[in-house]
Amino acid sequence: MSHHAAASRPGGRSSRVLTAIYTAVGELVGEGADRITFPVVADRAGVNPTTLYRRWDGVHALLEEVAVAALTRDGESVPDTGSLQQDLTQWAQIIADDITRPHRARYLRAMVSARTEVVARCPVTERRREQASEVVGRARERGERTPGIQQILDHVIAPLYHHVVFALPADGEYARRLVRDVLAMAESE
Amino acid sequence: MSHHAAASRPGGRSSRVLTAIYTAVGELVGEGADRITFPVVADRAGVNPTTLYRRWDGVHALLEEVAVAALTRDGESVPDTGSLQQDLTQWAQIIADDITRPHRARYLRAMVSARTEVVARCPVTERRREQASEVVGRARERGERTPGIQQILDHVIAPLYHHVVFALPADGEYARRLVRDVLAMAESE
Repeated sequence: MSHHAAASRPGGRSSRVLTAIYTAVGELVGEGADRITFPVVADRAGVNPTTLYRRWDGVHALLEEVAVAALTRDGESVPDTGSLQQDLTQWAQIIADDITRPHRARYLRAMVSARTEVVARCPVTERRREQASEVVGRARERGERTPGIQQILDHVIAPLYHHVVFALPADGEYARRLVRDVLAMAESE
Repeated sequence: MSHHAAASRPGGRSSRVLTAIYTAVGELVGEGADRITFPVVADRAGVNPTTLYRRWDGVHALLEEVAVAALTRDGESVPDTGSLQQDLTQWAQIIADDITRPHRARYLRAMVSARTEVVARCPVTERRREQASEVVGRARERGERTPGIQQILDHVIAPLYHHVVFALPADGEYARRLVRDVLAMAESE
């Protein structure tokens, strides 16, 4: 869960403290706690609140860090079926299945509520951008017409996340339809 | 702000209580309060908490009601320029301007955090669906090719709201690009 911990000396005090903090946040988000503050996290982690105030600008920064780590840690492989339409459809369906899981949806909500100021780049979106580039890159090598990477983010990824965050249904069939739509953009270009 | 209050006898006690409750929630959301509970609302409204527990299943239900009322109350008129591309572009830009205002964005976040269970229909989305139908209906009468209503919701509205809720930039240029993309779908059909 913690990239900071991995950077510290393994087994060192600082690594243990960080692990306890990240785990505490994970538990609180998992429980659906509706108010996560530094004192609440410190209490759960069994560390001094000062440690938290010293390391993060605010609880928003800590929450965002943990949510992003949780939402991007999977070593998901991107489908490689030999067809852009198949790759995108399977990929979108994997994402829909993943982010509608209650645990994931809670991390998404935690991330959203931690975002109090406009960000230039969202690490979760950037992760999806890399995956989309991989799929599109292979299709272009095969000589297929493709939509742009940003179009895939705007017209497949954004509506899927929007549906999850707004608690609207987001199933495999919805994912399939979004991919069909974005491919129509490629054809018309 | 309150459709319930409007349904009650004007000036009656129940109407005054409801107005106080809705106003209190509006103030708390406006201040960016990060924990809105029945006792907090009751205290601000100067009413007995029992009134709230009796009327709403939970603070989520009250918050959703107020946020939806705030997000749908404007009598916005939909652009009618004689061209689908112009109508959709202006409409999307009006929405982008509107929902990126800090006050609106806070109501959106309040609504999102109040949504703890999957909803079949989101009143905010349904409002946008009606507006999209109006624009598309006029274009069809003029004999223009149009994307589907659901495509406009998925590929213009969803990415705009997604950007606001994820605190990503959502400006007029972004709105314009989304409309260009959705119109490409109409052309390829």
